[in-house]
Amino acid sequence: MDIYEKFQLLGVENAPGQELRQGEDGEVLCDLDLSGDPVDFSHGDVNAFPPVPGSFSAFKKGVLEGAAQAYTEYRGRKQIRDDAAEKLSAFMGVTVDPDREIILAPGTQGALFMAAGSVIMPGDRVCFVQPDYFAYRKLVVFFGGVCVPVNLNYMQYADRAGIDLKALESVFQSGVKVFMFSNPNNPTGVIYSHEEIRSIADMAARYQVTLIVDELYSRQIFDGRPYFHLCAEDTVPDSMVTIIGPSKTESLSGYRLGTAFGTAGLIDRMEEVQAIMDLRCGGYNQAVFSVWFDEPEEWMKERVKQHQAIRDRMADVFGAEEGISFRLTEGGSYFFVELPELTVSLKDFVKTARKAAGITVTPGTEFGPQFTHHFRINFSQDPKKAESAAERLVRLVRFFKKR
Amino acid sequence: MDIYEKFQLLGVENAPGQELRQGEDGEVLCDLDLSGDPVDFSHGDVNAFPPVPGSFSAFKKGVLEGAAQAYTEYRGRKQIRDDAAEKLSAFMGVTVDPDREIILAPGTQGALFMAAGSVIMPGDRVCFVQPDYFAYRKLVVFFGGVCVPVNLNYMQYADRAGIDLKALESVFQSGVKVFMFSNPNNPTGVIYSHEEIRSIADMAARYQVTLIVDELYSRQIFDGRPYFHLCAEDTVPDSMVTIIGPSKTESLSGYRLGTAFGTAGLIDRMEEVQAIMDLRCGGYNQAVFSVWFDEPEEWMKERVKQHQAIRDRMADVFGAEEGISFRLTEGGSYFFVELPELTVSLKDFVKTARKAAGITVTPGTEFGPQFTHHFRINFSQDPKKAESAAERLVRLVRFFKKR
Repeated sequence: MDIYEKFQLLGVENAPGQELRQGEDGEVLCDLDLSGDPVDFSHGDVNAFPPVPGSFSAFKKGVLEGAAQAYTEYRGRKQIRDDAAEKLSAFMGVTVDPDREIILAPGTQGALFMAAGSVIMPGDRVCFVQPDYFAYRKLVVFFGGVCVPVNLNYMQYADRAGIDLKALESVFQSGVKVFMFSNPNNPTGVIYSHEEIRSIADMAARYQVTLIVDELYSRQIFDGRPYFHLCAEDTVPDSMVTIIGPSKTESLSGYRLGTAFGTAGLIDRMEEVQAIMDLRCGGYNQAVFSVWFDEPEEWMKERVKQHQAIRDRMADVFGAEEGISFRLTEGGSYFFVELPELTVSLKDFVKTARKAAGITVTPGTEFGPQFTHHFRINFSQDPKKAESAAERLVRLVRFFKKR
Repeated sequence: MDIYEKFQLLGVENAPGQELRQGEDGEVLCDLDLSGDPVDFSHGDVNAFPPVPGSFSAFKKGVLEGAAQAYTEYRGRKQIRDDAAEKLSAFMGVTVDPDREIILAPGTQGALFMAAGSVIMPGDRVCFVQPDYFAYRKLVVFFGGVCVPVNLNYMQYADRAGIDLKALESVFQSGVKVFMFSNPNNPTGVIYSHEEIRSIADMAARYQVTLIVDELYSRQIFDGRPYFHLCAEDTVPDSMVTIIGPSKTESLSGYRLGTAFGTAGLIDRMEEVQAIMDLRCGGYNQAVFSVWFDEPEEWMKERVKQHQAIRDRMADVFGAEEGISFRLTEGGSYFFVELPELTVSLKDFVKTARKAAGITVTPGTEFGPQFTHHFRINFSQDPKKAESAAERLVRLVRFFKKR
C-alpha cells in the first residue's frame, strides 16, 4: 500500500463539520418547501448551549499569567494535572496519580490519537464496535493496523448496549492487541450494562488486550440510569486508558480540551507522541480546565435535563413516522435514525436535506459500512429549531420513501 | 520492532520544556556560587517579549462570535485561511490558493507532524540535516521511516549554511522520498544561501523528493541579510510544503498556531490527518491569526532589533572564553555553543547548570548524536538576565574545562 491508497481509505469528505467543502454542485431532488431555520446537526450548537460559566475568565487569567501558562510540560501543567486528577478520581471512583497517570490533550480527539499512536504498530489487529465513533476505523488505518469490527446489536435490547460478547471473546482469542469503544456509544447513545463492562474488562485482562475507553459523554446520562466506569472495575487489564473531556455537555469545544488517564507506561508513550504532534495542549487553553467538574451543581443538572427534553421531542417526531426506527438515547446528545427504503441514495438524501432544508446530518456509513439507511444527529441545539428541523427531515423521508 | 522499542528510539526526556520531569536526584558537581535570576533558555520568554498587540482582543472576539468560531472546517475557517493566504503570498512572493493550498494547524509542530504523516510510509527513506530541529528524527521514527542524515558543515562557512550538497544529491539519487529542513537552521541560526536553496529545489524536482521547508524563524533575520524562500524559486518539486507560524518572533506560542501551505494534494492529506489528530486547530485560537503579519511595522522592526542586540551580547560573552566556539546567529533566536573538552559529561554539565545556576539549556545531542560538546540556548529572554546567565554558563565551562 502506498501513501495515496492509505489516504483513500481514510476519507474525510463526509466527516461531520466538513460539509462546507463538499461544494454545491448537483440539483436539488425535491420540490417540497422545506424552508426554516438552518440547523447543523453534525455537532452541538454552543450558541444554544453556551460554555461553562467562568471559562473565558479562566482563559484570560492564563494569558495574564504569561510564560508559565504559555509553556507547560508536554503532558500539561502540573497544577492543572493535579486538579484534573483529583476531580476525575472522584467522578470515576478510582485514584489517578497526577504525575504518572494523566495527560492533557488538544481535545478528546487528540487524546484518542495519542493513545492509538502509542499502542498500534503496523500489522496489529485492532478491534472496535460497529456502529461506533467514525474516527476509530480511521486511526487503525492511519497507524497501519488491521481493522477487526465487532457488532453492537443495539436494536435488540433495552437493558444493555448489545455488544456481541461471544464475537468479542473470539477476536480477543485470535490475537487482537487493542480494543476501543465509546460509552455512551456514539452514534446510538446507548449505555453498556454493568455485565457488559465487567465482561469487557475481564476478557481484556485475560487476553492482554489494551483498552481505550472513550467516555466523552459520560456526564450526560438520562432517566437516572446507572452508568459504569470500566476503570473502576475490580479486574482491569494491565494496559488501559480512559478518555474524557469538556467539549460536549460543557460546550468548551472551542478551547479544544481533553484528557486521558490510565496506565503510567501508556501515558508516558502518549506524551512522546504529544511531543512531536503539537508539543502541548494549547498553553492558555489549559487554564480553562479549572472550570471543568467545578460547574455550579444546578447548572449541570439543568443542562442534562434540557437535553433530555430535546431528546424526548426528537423521539416524538421521528417515532410518529412509520418506517423510521431508532433506540431511545440513554446518554449523550446523539440520535441514530434508521430510515425505510428510499428512492434515493443515502448520499443524495443527506445532500438534499442540506440544500433544500438547510439541515446537516451525518450519514450512517461514517459509523460502519452497513449503516446505509441511517443518519446521526447531534440534538444539542436550540430546541425549537431542532424540532422544526426534525419535522422537515421526516417530511423529506416521507417524500423519498419507496412505496 | 515492537511498540516499546519504537518509543525507546523516540525519547522525550531531554526535550526542551521537559526539564521539570527529570527529577532532582544526584548531587551538584560544582561548588561555585552561581546564584542569579533563573533563566530557561529552552524556549523564549513571552514575559520578556510579550505577544503581538491585539492578540488577546482577537481571541475574545472569536469567543464572542460563538459557534461559528468554535467549530470550523478541519483545515481552518475560510475567512481566516483567506486572510492568511493573502498575507503569506505577499511575504513569500508566491500565490497561495486559500481553498486548496493552506491549512491551519495547532502550532508549527502540528503542521510538521501532519506533513510528515502525509508523506512517510513505513520503510520510506527520509532525509534531514544534522544539526537540525530535534523533532525531524523523531517524526521519521514514529512514522516507521528510515533516517538518512546529511551534514550541515556550518562552522566552515560564513556566506552559506554549509549543507553538504554532494551528499544530499547522492542520498536523493539513492531513493530518498522526503527531505525536511529548517531555514534559518535550528539550532545554529545560520541561513541558507540562494545557491543552496536553488540546488535543493532543483535536486528535489529532479529526483522527485517531497520537500518540507520549515521557515518558522524567517521573519527574524539579522544584519539585513538576504533570505530566500524556497517556494518562490523557478523550479520547485511537484510535492512540497512550507511551514511557518506566529509562535516565535510574534510570541503567540500560548495560542498554539501554525500553518502549512503548498501542494494541494499534500494539504488534502494533511487535513485527513488533522481530522483524526485533533479535528481542528483550536477554534477560538484561530481568531488570533488575524493579528499575524498585521503587527505595527515599527513593533516588528524593534523586536528584531532587540533580538539582534541580545545576540551580540551573547556573542561577546561566549566569544571571550577560550575553547568555546560558535557561528554567529544570522536569523532566529538560537545560539549553538560548542564547548571544549570537559571533565564531566554533557548530561552532567546541563544538569549542574540547572541545579547550581538555575539555567536551563538544551543538550546538543538532541540535534544529532555527534553534538556531544554543544548546547543550544534560545536568547529571546530578558536581556540583563540572559547576559548574567551566559556569564554564569561561561564560569561553569571554565570550572569543568579539562586542562
